[in-house]
Amino acid sequence: MNAVDIVAMLALLQYLVFGAQVGGARGKYGVKAPAVTGAEGFERVYRVQMNTLELLVAFLPALYAAARYWPATYVAGVGAVFIVGRALYARAYRAAPEKRGTGFVLSIAPVFVLVVAALIGAVLGR
Amino acid sequence: MNAVDIVAMLALLQYLVFGAQVGGARGKYGVKAPAVTGAEGFERVYRVQMNTLELLVAFLPALYAAARYWPATYVAGVGAVFIVGRALYARAYRAAPEKRGTGFVLSIAPVFVLVVAALIGAVLGR
Amino acid sequence: MNAVDIVAMLALLQYLVFGAQVGGARGKYGVKAPAVTGAEGFERVYRVQMNTLELLVAFLPALYAAARYWPATYVAGVGAVFIVGRALYARAYRAAPEKRGTGFVLSIAPVFVLVVAALIGAVLGR
Repeated sequence: MNAVDIVAMLALLQYLVFGAQVGGARGKYGVKAPAVTGAEGFERVYRVQMNTLELLVAFLPALYAAARYWPATYVAGVGAVFIVGRALYARAYRAAPEKRGTGFVLSIAPVFVLVVAALIGAVLGR
Repeated sequence: MNAVDIVAMLALLQYLVFGAQVGGARGKYGVKAPAVTGAEGFERVYRVQMNTLELLVAFLPALYAAARYWPATYVAGVGAVFIVGRALYARAYRAAPEKRGTGFVLSIAPVFVLVVAALIGAVLGR
Repeated sequence: MNAVDIVAMLALLQYLVFGAQVGGARGKYGVKAPAVTGAEGFERVYRVQMNTLELLVAFLPALYAAARYWPATYVAGVGAVFIVGRALYARAYRAAPEKRGTGFVLSIAPVFVLVVAALIGAVLGR
């Protein structure tokens, strides 16, 4: 069992679900491609996917880089917080965008921790 | 020869071409930065790049993770389908957005297969 | 010390700063989520983050793939040019979008060099 790969792939599955929900929201709110605006309900679902994309670009390389220097269990644990944070973020954003703070912090904080942990590891050459 | 790296880099070259085409479309349709809307023709070219970006974020980590558990030839083969799917998607989207289905399925399916294959590999610890 | 990981993590930190600046610009220009348009000043800051995201998706996998075939010092050096290019790009874009050319070239060129270098390495099997 490779805990880091499992966390990485679960984060990607979650992201693919967010992407599928954008497709569903296109139909529900009548927003035809290539438009990505026009209905607040659609835009919320779309922004959840986009914001997750924005974070994944940093999360995944930092997760794997950190795992080269620190124990896999700790790194995977921090990664799991990211997934929980994203789930809270998605639920809150769709209900009321102004309430997305907690979920956002719980997903940006793990990214920051992993980037800094990997940077320290790479500098110290542990 | 490393088939997985070759497929990954060819997918990135294709993506860089899509990006260059967005630059070209800015001139052709008169859409000045920072705007990304205002002309349907521009938006189609832009959405091709963005949708490819959305998939690459999952495709590349899943490709490399799957390659840690399964034979490189199979993994690279699934990756090659992704590139063909993206080419069909781009051509269809620019001609008529509603016809992008086939290319989309041929590019999202390989991503899904690779994520699940990597997840199974990571859980079974092959 | 791992020069490639250091460059990769510094590029991610720079990207996280660009992301934080988007949050700040939402307040400054009064653009409430989920909107990402409505104020030129906000859109410039947002486009800097998005364009960096668009490049990072190619930059990071290409950086690591190139490092499998070429000396880490050269690869990290090319990566450092990317970070400088992004800093110039961000400053120019926010001052005047039409002056972003130099910074853009200095960040897209390293990406292209790394993708081609990795591709050559993967084909030759160095």
